Amino acid sequence: MHHFITGAAGFIGSQLVDSLLAAGEQVSGADDFSLGRPEFLQSARRNPAFRFFESDVSITKEIVAAVRAASEEAGPPAIIWHLAANSDISAGVEDVSIDFRRTIQTTIGVLEAAKSEGIGKIVFASTSAVYGERGNEMLTEDSGPLLPISSYGAAKLGSEAFLSAAAESFVERLWIFRFANVVGPRLTHGAIFDFIARLATHPSALQVLGDGSQTKQYIHVSELIDAMKFVVAGATGRRNVFNIAPTGEGTRVAFLAEHVVDRFLPGTAIAYSGGGRGWVGDIPYFRLSIERIAQLGWQPTLSSDEAVVRAIDELVRNFEPAVREQCHSTP
Amino acid sequence: MHHFITGAAGFIGSQLVDSLLAAGEQVSGADDFSLGRPEFLQSARRNPAFRFFESDVSITKEIVAAVRAASEEAGPPAIIWHLAANSDISAGVEDVSIDFRRTIQTTIGVLEAAKSEGIGKIVFASTSAVYGERGNEMLTEDSGPLLPISSYGAAKLGSEAFLSAAAESFVERLWIFRFANVVGPRLTHGAIFDFIARLATHPSALQVLGDGSQTKQYIHVSELIDAMKFVVAGATGRRNVFNIAPTGEGTRVAFLAEHVVDRFLPGTAIAYSGGGRGWVGDIPYFRLSIERIAQLGWQPTLSSDEAVVRAIDELVRNFEPAVREQCHSTP
Repeated sequence: MHHFITGAAGFIGSQLVDSLLAAGEQVSGADDFSLGRPEFLQSARRNPAFRFFESDVSITKEIVAAVRAASEEAGPPAIIWHLAANSDISAGVEDVSIDFRRTIQTTIGVLEAAKSEGIGKIVFASTSAVYGERGNEMLTEDSGPLLPISSYGAAKLGSEAFLSAAAESFVERLWIFRFANVVGPRLTHGAIFDFIARLATHPSALQVLGDGSQTKQYIHVSELIDAMKFVVAGATGRRNVFNIAPTGEGTRVAFLAEHVVDRFLPGTAIAYSGGGRGWVGDIPYFRLSIERIAQLGWQPTLSSDEAVVRAIDELVRNFEPAVREQCHSTP
Repeated sequence: MHHFITGAAGFIGSQLVDSLLAAGEQVSGADDFSLGRPEFLQSARRNPAFRFFESDVSITKEIVAAVRAASEEAGPPAIIWHLAANSDISAGVEDVSIDFRRTIQTTIGVLEAAKSEGIGKIVFASTSAVYGERGNEMLTEDSGPLLPISSYGAAKLGSEAFLSAAAESFVERLWIFRFANVVGPRLTHGAIFDFIARLATHPSALQVLGDGSQTKQYIHVSELIDAMKFVVAGATGRRNVFNIAPTGEGTRVAFLAEHVVDRFLPGTAIAYSGGGRGWVGDIPYFRLSIERIAQLGWQPTLSSDEAVVRAIDELVRNFEPAVREQCHSTP
């Protein structure tokens, strides 16, 4: 089967590419390298079953052309996995046009491409942020109201909505996945990534926004990809909405910061800025129900804390020489 | 108080302008006359408390300039009533860019204008279509999931989401109104409008999409405006979401068609195309809960059927000479 992936050079996209290629599938990918990185596709590009199209998915004619070219080279894709989006939540607070262009407009572009090439199956990478701030509530896929507190969440919800509307006409099957925070190799953003970057550049103390009490669910990218593939194979409704999250409680930011320090630069002080929230639009606590995906037959094996520990350990292994060198060379 | 209204020349916008002017308020309005009509503002433009700016709200720099000019002429508006949007639901099925540009982009423009002029209060005209197709369920403002079946509903939901995100920063108070179908004088779209237009051009038989069984709630525009003003004065949360709908059951399309025929061209046959749905994206049945607005102290006085009858009678009175002439001059 031929899969088309937007955001193919990104953190999740590139690992989805590798996973599908390993399963013997035909894979085409598009990315503009604004957040994705060429080196994440190094292994994929040696595989003749993979084609890459450097294109800005937010420009409709570029993504339509890329999907058409993929179609000519390897037959029409059966499915589009739409992962291209802005992933920098705090950037959208100052400038709403970032999420508007890079998330809503990429979705419109994908819809135009799917329509013009007759592709009836779309997978969309959505987020827990569509639920807004809901305190202790266990969030199911049917929970309302949906009042996001960031442009990031708003643009994802708007994208869900346009995809849902298209599922009334030319989109025959739609999967919307609302992710918890995702961690693992090739991270390009998020708290773990930021903490490592800050330690590398300011090794005297790790500055952490908020008081460390924010508690979020983290899922490992390998489990996330496994879950998506499982649901796409097994959920056959017209509009399939699934949370993907670890079992149990979330992970405190303080736990995450302490583990990063322990593994990268032991003994470094952690300086909390205070307050229950990291930044405007930050949701300090959320908990996704995974009952729906469990009923379909999929269960995560890692808790949120275990996913975080594993991800940090993998990042240490990959980046240790460079990071340690940079840390120690800074006075 | 100075109010700024987008879509000021439209069906609802122009009557909101008149209502606010009658209450002695300062009012500024913007419209590009793509759906709105200059004659709807005839009375307002004779009032020195009204200023009009012909501008395309979907072009950010135009709406920012209009709000700035209004601000210079009459002081900064205290509130923006954002009513500019595509209102042709079926148009968006073929071309998603219509709702994208005319609804989502107008909302982004309004947000930029509010931010740049320091306007902290925004009212948004949303729709029952954000709920998608939900069968017999009584829809409260907290109902989920929100999976629209039209680009119209999707763009309204996306707009709600971006406004909600802005309510985390510079928007201090937000009112989202999810309207049932609205009817009354100055209709520019919708079933009643379409039926009258079809009768005028094809008087031999009234063609009606679907089997006539679709049942929707209609509210009269005068009650809608009264409800909005009541809620804006009384609901003081940061994000205030309210359904606005009549009491009781909705109105069958067949009732509406029959009443239009009886009042405009008695005896004309009604030809139903069949099927339970008017067009792709049409929601054949919905019922909005009005418990929240009732608890705040507002109640509609008209049932859905009564609103429809009153609206048709008003339209007959206004357009009777022209319509009858056109109908009778056609062989």
